[in-house]
This record gives sequence, structure tokens and C-alpha cells, in this order.
Amino acid sequence: MIATTAFTLAGIATRFGLELHGDADREIHGVATLSTAGPHDIGFLANSRYRGQLATTAAAAVILRREDAIDGGPAALVTRDPYVAFAQVAALFERTPATTPGIHASAVVAASARVDPGACVGAQCVIEEGAVVEAGAILGAHCIVGRNCTVGAHSRLVARVTLVADVTLGRRVLIHPGAVLGADGFGLAFDRDHWIKVPQLGGVRIGDDCEIGANTTIDRGALDDTVLAEDVRLDNQIQIAHNVTIGAHTAIAGCAAVAGSTHIGSYCLIGGSAGIIGHLTIADRVTITAMSLVTHSIREPGEYSSGMPVQESRRWRRNAARFRHLDELARRIADTDKGNPQ
Amino acid sequence: MIATTAFTLAGIATRFGLELHGDADREIHGVATLSTAGPHDIGFLANSRYRGQLATTAAAAVILRREDAIDGGPAALVTRDPYVAFAQVAALFERTPATTPGIHASAVVAASARVDPGACVGAQCVIEEGAVVEAGAILGAHCIVGRNCTVGAHSRLVARVTLVADVTLGRRVLIHPGAVLGADGFGLAFDRDHWIKVPQLGGVRIGDDCEIGANTTIDRGALDDTVLAEDVRLDNQIQIAHNVTIGAHTAIAGCAAVAGSTHIGSYCLIGGSAGIIGHLTIADRVTITAMSLVTHSIREPGEYSSGMPVQESRRWRRNAARFRHLDELARRIADTDKGNPQ
Amino acid sequence: MIATTAFTLAGIATRFGLELHGDADREIHGVATLSTAGPHDIGFLANSRYRGQLATTAAAAVILRREDAIDGGPAALVTRDPYVAFAQVAALFERTPATTPGIHASAVVAASARVDPGACVGAQCVIEEGAVVEAGAILGAHCIVGRNCTVGAHSRLVARVTLVADVTLGRRVLIHPGAVLGADGFGLAFDRDHWIKVPQLGGVRIGDDCEIGANTTIDRGALDDTVLAEDVRLDNQIQIAHNVTIGAHTAIAGCAAVAGSTHIGSYCLIGGSAGIIGHLTIADRVTITAMSLVTHSIREPGEYSSGMPVQESRRWRRNAARFRHLDELARRIADTDKGNPQ
Repeated sequence: MIATTAFTLAGIATRFGLELHGDADREIHGVATLSTAGPHDIGFLANSRYRGQLATTAAAAVILRREDAIDGGPAALVTRDPYVAFAQVAALFERTPATTPGIHASAVVAASARVDPGACVGAQCVIEEGAVVEAGAILGAHCIVGRNCTVGAHSRLVARVTLVADVTLGRRVLIHPGAVLGADGFGLAFDRDHWIKVPQLGGVRIGDDCEIGANTTIDRGALDDTVLAEDVRLDNQIQIAHNVTIGAHTAIAGCAAVAGSTHIGSYCLIGGSAGIIGHLTIADRVTITAMSLVTHSIREPGEYSSGMPVQESRRWRRNAARFRHLDELARRIADTDKGNPQ
Repeated sequence: MIATTAFTLAGIATRFGLELHGDADREIHGVATLSTAGPHDIGFLANSRYRGQLATTAAAAVILRREDAIDGGPAALVTRDPYVAFAQVAALFERTPATTPGIHASAVVAASARVDPGACVGAQCVIEEGAVVEAGAILGAHCIVGRNCTVGAHSRLVARVTLVADVTLGRRVLIHPGAVLGADGFGLAFDRDHWIKVPQLGGVRIGDDCEIGANTTIDRGALDDTVLAEDVRLDNQIQIAHNVTIGAHTAIAGCAAVAGSTHIGSYCLIGGSAGIIGHLTIADRVTITAMSLVTHSIREPGEYSSGMPVQESRRWRRNAARFRHLDELARRIADTDKGNPQ
Repeated sequence: MIATTAFTLAGIATRFGLELHGDADREIHGVATLSTAGPHDIGFLANSRYRGQLATTAAAAVILRREDAIDGGPAALVTRDPYVAFAQVAALFERTPATTPGIHASAVVAASARVDPGACVGAQCVIEEGAVVEAGAILGAHCIVGRNCTVGAHSRLVARVTLVADVTLGRRVLIHPGAVLGADGFGLAFDRDHWIKVPQLGGVRIGDDCEIGANTTIDRGALDDTVLAEDVRLDNQIQIAHNVTIGAHTAIAGCAAVAGSTHIGSYCLIGGSAGIIGHLTIADRVTITAMSLVTHSIREPGEYSSGMPVQESRRWRRNAARFRHLDELARRIADTDKGNPQ
């Protein structure tokens, strides 16, 4: 379906160490789902649930685990982790935007900013005083690299990314449009009858190989920095408050929110729309499921939940009404157990 | 309150098929709420709860259902659906921004992009390679139309809209500022000890007459496209993940999130801050109330909920503490019923 | 840690009315946390929980309450509210961006717009017809001030703020990047088999000294305005729907959402990711904790909750399954109490 360059099946198998069963010379033009693949596409089967599609797919070949292969099916590219292999194969067919190093004529670059000649700065970008854009970095249209920010080598700001001030990106960081890094944290002190703003003087540090989704926000620290270690993966519309730290290889799904000064470990998985309140510590390898609320520190790896699944509303409302008196109900049961029915 | 051009009551009644009771020649300058309307404004009464305001409003006339009219009240414009009629009348008084076809001098348009001479491209827009802007389309300031994107005829990007790449908009689509369509979906494969990115190669297709709110994000598909059918209405800050499909005439309120590959039917209503996990199917005419979590497919039309309403915190905490042991409580009750109190 | 200008301890104590115990002549270069402070930094202790750090901090002095001071500790700056005093002291060391009044050459300003000569309009801003930017206002790069919008004196739009149309900001308003004020409210009327848009004709009014976070959205009213009174503080990614009003000194944490026509009182505290449905009234001095859902008006000050904390998933699922039958369970208990075990 996605066609750009041609490879042979054998070439692809060799390149990624896959075991090929089938027509070695078949030309491959792209990748596709099993249901939409044509005779020059590679598909994949990572979830045995979809195994039934093997019999009907028109794909040239399918990346799969040995045990999922079927007799008389399409050519097979056997591997232990089909999804990883598919990601590698698909990357062959990704059309990366052609970029020429240099600064677009419409961009505004401050006198004290330093842009490597091997970097690419797109239309209408603004690079402010003291900013640094390293070699191989690509800034799409409308990016702002604010005061004293650094975009590490080979990082890519897809378009319309805002680095407000004192933000340092590692290497190969990928940031999607609308993301805002380095805005002031929400620091307020209540002075008798009104708020006064607590100055936000820290920065943001993003490790190598992080990915940050569209319209996600990561605030600068109040005094110390807000920090993402390497290979942290954030989906869209996530809110990371000031002085949060996130360990390496943690992935967070869309619309989750992490309040100030919370520390999240490595290899955590945080589900969509989850909320984590401030000043907590979450251990390594903790999974939080979608729309759960974390109000206390989690010291042990494992999976934690509090997202309540829907019911038909009429039933739900009756149950929720009972919930409002659950403590009384429990007390009554305790009394009954003691032989004191009320 | 909102005054631009003058119409007579009779003229408005005729134009929209309303039954007029009252002063046909009264000049109308605008629309307003019953409580703020002046003698040249039209108000409306869609909810009988506010019927008491009829006696005191200064409005020239009120759009209402026959049964809501009162003796001695203001002039009436009778219809079966006052809110629909009001929407039509109000549109007479909307001040649409004056736009002249053409491309603003500060915009950057790629050589291979095609902008219809009847389209309007505002200040500092960026139109990238292979993009198409059709006749009558209006792009406010700071829009980005990325590679191979199409803005259909008479669509309007209010300002600062980002179409990243491979996004196709139908006709009369309206998109508000900060929306990002076509960013990469959140596709990751875990390779032993780190993440590798799964290339996102699909696009986004938006049907005719859709409306998309401020800072809403709609990711491109992984292989196939992410698709909104016609007349889908999305409020602000909604997250639509890769390969989601949404049926015609479905409306979704602010801050809702739909995870990858979920299919939502037609004529659904999804409440604010609701969450729908990935790979589900939601039937037509399903209503999900605010802040509910959908974790399984819904096959039947109807209304579904799981958003828990607030209580005074002291009571809430006692109930929530009991909830943590609800299963044990239920077991104990089952035992008691069997005559085995513990 | 943050060093710019030098002050003496005595000078700082006098300036903010703090009671100094210790070396009056010590030069102060910045502020820092107790654990990272060096010998020319001031730290603070607002939470007695961290009192143990007093013995080990290298700070020149610590702002604290009298009762938290320790013998042999660092110099003390005694006050009744250390966090407020710290906010004031920290502001001495804030590096505000140097701005020169005037309009950047790359900005686009409409003929009928009025920009005060004492205002600062940054790179690539767009100021549309009828807009007003008052004296001392600072617009960072890429701001849009739409038709008939006013930016009050000494307000600051950090960068990439969008005021769509008919938005009026008071004085000293601070808005962070990605915020969108004045987009259309989500007004739809269902006409037999499709939606028609209800024109959104009102504006947005923001009081003096408000702060609005990154990627937050505040919609224009349908007929009347959406209104924030003075000193309202909004964190990032908050959604405020059309015709909401928010009383003075109310603070709302990240990702909260308030639906249309709801009125929130003064001095309220709304937690992160909380949801408030439409057409409600919330009294003054109401606190809503994180991730709670408000579905009815709240008439009394106090703290309200419905955010359910996580449990280990295996236990959670069992409890949630019981919840689905809570009403039946409660009925059975009522029957048992009556001596009718089923």
C-alpha cells in the first residue's frame, strides 16, 4: 500500500535476520495490514487472534512467529518478535521529508544563537538568544527554540514545537507539533487574600532518544530541573509538571497527567488519561492502567488500577448511589455478623 | 446585544418558516439571552425550566414551542425545535471575518503545492510540498498544511492549525486553533531493553462538515488511515489515536480520549473527559456520559456511565476505603446468607 | 544555583521584613533547594517534614518559621509564611527576558490595530483588525491577537498564544504558549439527522493578574461572554467551555475541564484532571480533589472528592466486578436485616 523503493524478500530477510519461507525474489514495495496488503506488500502477525487472516491475505509475505505459520499460507518471515521485526522492515518504507541543511529565509535567528551548518531550520522558526541547534538537527516549520535552549544532534522537532527557555534536548529526540517544553510550573503561594507567583527558575532536560507527542506539555522546574531520562516515550496531550523526573524507557499514553515533584521509575507503563498526584515516588517496572489515579507512592513493581469500567447508565446510577453509603453498609454488615442486626 | 444588520421580525419568520405572533415590523438587530436581550433582539426558550424569564425579558421576540408561550409575553416565533431555529437565526448576525482570496505576502508556499485562486491563505501560513488548498478554503494566520495534505473546498482553518502530512479534509470542514492532525501515532515495539519506533505510514481522512476543536489531536494511522466520517463534531483537547474510525454525526465533548484502532459508530455522543481504550467497537447511537471509561466493546445502543460523582471528602474517603475491600465484604455476605457468619 | 546579582542577607531581610539570625554580610547570589544550595544561596523550609535537611544544607541561610529553626543550623530568615517569603526572595533572582519596546520587523500588524509604543511585539506575531495592545504589554514570538482583542497593560503572552477574536485581557495577565482563548464554544443543535452549528457570538473577558497555562483553552461565549475574574490561576491543558464564569482567586490544576455555563465561585481550588459538568453553580471556597467529577451544584464551602485511588490490579478488578452488582448486594443486606435471607 505504501510504495517507494523496491527490495526483494530475500534482501529483507537477510537484512533483519529473518528466516524466509517462500519466494526469495519477490519484489517488495511496501508494508500493509493483512487485510489490505497487495502482492508486493509485507504484512505481520503479532497477535495470534488475527491468525485467521493468514488464509485470505494477498500479502507477498507475513512476518510471524514460527508457531503461527500455516500450511499453504503466504510466504513467511519467521522471527521471535514479529512486531519488532515489522517496525524495522516498515522503516525501510518510511518517506522522511527531504531536508537540506541550512536556515530558511523566513526564520528569525538571534545574534547569540548558534546553529550548526549541518542543521536544518524550517520556515518561520524563531531561534532566540543563547540557543544552540546541533548538527543534523531538523526543525520543521514554526518551531521556537527559546533562550538558552539546546537541540541535540539529530533531534527532530516536526513542526510548531515550543522550547520556552532553559530546555536541553539530548540526541535523536523527536517532538511532535504543539508540544510546549519549559513553560513555567504552576507555583503559587497564597498571601492572605491573593496569590503570588513563585518564580520558576529551573529548566527541562530531555535524554537521548525520547519521543514527545503532539500538544504535550513539560514544565520547567521551580529550582532544580524537570528531567526525562533516555528513551522515555510520551504520547499526545500529556502534562508533566515541574520537577517531575521520569526514568529511562518509561512510556506514557495520551492525556495522562503527572503533578509536581513526582518521581517515576524506569520501564514503567502509564495508561491513557491516568493521573499521578504530586510528591510521590513510583518504583521501576510499574504499570498503571488507563484512567487510574495514583495518590500514594508505589514501592513494588506490578500492575495497578482504579479506572472503573462503564455499565448501562440506569444500573450504574443505582450502584453509584449505593456507593455513597458504602461505609454505613459495611458497618451494618459488621454489626450483623456480631449478631446485632439493626 | 450583537448588532450588525437589520431584519424585520416578519422577514425572519418567513425566512425560517416560523409562526409569528406579534409586531411584524419590529426591526431586529441581533440575538441575545432572555435576560440580556434589548428591544431589537431575538431570544429563545429551548428549556421550559427558564419559562419564568418570558414575563420579564425585554426581547423583541422569543423563539419557542407553542406550549411555552404565555399570555401578555413578548412576540413569539413558534416552532417545534426552538434551538435549531435559534441557531439559524443567530447565523444571520454572525460577523464572519472579511477575507479576500489570495495568499498573504508573509506566507511560504512550496513550489509543488497548489492553492486555488479562490482560496485565502493568511499571514505566515506554510504550505508544504504536494499540498492542495481548494476553492473557497480559508486559512487564518499561522496554519501549516504539510506534505501531501488537502484542504477541501470551503473548509476553514481558523488559525494556527497544523496538518502534519497525508491529511485529507473534506468540504466545509472547520478546525480551531492549536489542533494537530496527522502527527505520528504512538507506535512502539519493545526490543529486549529499549523501545523502537514503529513507523507511522498512514494518513488522516476527515469527512465533509466535520468540526474539530482547539488543541485537539488526531494522529495519522500506522498503516491504514485514521478516519472521521461526515458531520463528526469534536470539541477541544480531544485525543484521537491512530487508526480510530468515527461514524457520521457522532459528537464528542472536550478532553475525551480514544485509543488506537477503536471504531466508534454513527450518531454517538461521547461525554467530556471520557476514555475509550484501544481495539474496541462501539455501536451506533451509543451515549457515554462524562468521565466514563470504556474498556470493552459496546454492541447495543443506549447510555453508559462510570463517572463517579463527588461527595464531601470525609465521607468519600471512608467509602473509598471500604471499596478496597468490597470483594471480601461481598464474600462475607454470601457466607452469612448461607448461615455461616464468620 | 541561580546566580545573577548579589545581595546581602541583611539587605534581603530588611527588604521583605524577615527576622535575620546569622551572618548579616553574607553575599547572596541566588536561591536553591536545601539539598542543592551552595554557600551563597538562600533555601527555604515550608514543610516541617523536610526539617532534617537543615542539619546538612550548605545554604547561606534558610527562610523558615520560628519553630522550625535548629541550634547550630544555617543562618535563619524567620517569617510566619516561608513559602510566600521565598516567592518574594526568588523573584529577585528571576532572569526576565530583555525586551525593547517596539514591533519586530517580521510581525504583521493590521491597519486598524493599535499597538502602544511602549508595548513589545515579538517575532512573527500577527495583530489583526481592531486589536489593541496596551502599554507595557509583552508579546513573545508567534502570538496572534485576533480581531477586536485587547491585551491589557503589562500583560505578557510568553509565546505562541492565540487570542481568536473578541478577547479582552486585563492588566498583568500572564499567558503561556499554546493557550487558545476565544475559539468557538461547542454549540450544536440536532436537526432531524444532522448537526447544525450554533453561532458563537460572545467573547472572553480575563481579569487583572490572571495566569493561564500552556495549551489551556478558554472558549468564547455563545451569546454572553466567558469570564475569569481577577487573580484566577489556571495550570496547563485546562478546558474552559463557553459561558463559564470563574470567581476571583480561584486556582485550577492541570487537565481539569469545566463544561458550558457553569459558574465557579471565588477562592476555589480545583484539582488536576477534575471534571465539572455544565450549567452548575459552585460556591466560594470549594475544594475539589484530583480527578473528581462534579455532576451537581455545590452550595457549601468544603472539600469534595470522587477520585478513586489505585490498588494492585488483581484486587481492583475483583472489587470493580462487585461494584457492578452493589445495588443488588445492598438490597440483599436490607432483606437479611429484615430476617429474610434469600
